Amino acid sequence: MADAVLFEFLHTEMVAELWAPDPDPGPGGQKMRLSVLEGIGFRVGQALGERLPRETLAFREELDVLKFLCKDLWVATFQKQMDSLRANHQGTYVLQDNSFPLLVPMASGPQYLEEAPKFLAFTCGLLCGALRTLGFQSLVTASVTALPACKFQVVIQKS
Amino acid sequence: MADAVLFEFLHTEMVAELWAPDPDPGPGGQKMRLSVLEGIGFRVGQALGERLPRETLAFREELDVLKFLCKDLWVATFQKQMDSLRANHQGTYVLQDNSFPLLVPMASGPQYLEEAPKFLAFTCGLLCGALRTLGFQSLVTASVTALPACKFQVVIQKS
Repeated sequence: MADAVLFEFLHTEMVAELWAPDPDPGPGGQKMRLSVLEGIGFRVGQALGERLPRETLAFREELDVLKFLCKDLWVATFQKQMDSLRANHQGTYVLQDNSFPLLVPMASGPQYLEEAPKFLAFTCGLLCGALRTLGFQSLVTASVTALPACKFQVVIQKS
Repeated sequence: MADAVLFEFLHTEMVAELWAPDPDPGPGGQKMRLSVLEGIGFRVGQALGERLPRETLAFREELDVLKFLCKDLWVATFQKQMDSLRANHQGTYVLQDNSFPLLVPMASGPQYLEEAPKFLAFTCGLLCGALRTLGFQSLVTASVTALPACKFQVVIQKS
């Protein structure tokens, strides 16, 4: 049946619920809601990270970890692999998904572009949380130019 | 990897987020939060219902629909079937899950019993929403006597 879409439905309704009391909360309210979603994503990412097999946790090369996110984490979450991974320069990576599942339902018109951040915040947190469990501090941001494609930029923080 | 648990992690964090601003919000606040969860569950249940194959939507016998929830919907959501279904009297059904996955993490002690409603409200809504899509108005409530077992009572509303 529909088990693969259960997570997507729940994510969609969680976003809808957060914006329900005030669909246009202004920049401050918008930022607060996005950080709630990012926090939820972070903790889910950490929890997923803790479920990884031990041998996975042994790799410590940055690029291996990023490849793992693009393949295993993405398949576990979205039933597909990330479309490309580019290392821009040391510690900065760009992960591109040409048809990001959480954006697909709203990809019918460019007028929805400004709604996109709502549907990316959870996943930025997810990546950041999984990286934390794997031993890396990071900053993760997302951008969209043409729906439903998007790019996640991951900057690994050096300690 | 961990795709089967993704939904459970997201559900857990959504509950935690709702109670984060005030862990003890009093009866009114508690009720409001539970109804938020129930509403999210209802809309997810409706959406899942809309994904059902057309032949499934053809059955109209109450008991068939309840059996479908206990088997197909439960497997899609929790990767297991409901343990028992009892028709109490006309239009009232008791669905029992002896090890309800959303209660398992908190089943380590009876002191958590009072926390149980938080982890049942979404699923009450889910059942009610799926029933609505299948053509039935219902009232769904849940009760727990010994964690992690629980019972869902479904009362079909006659029009």
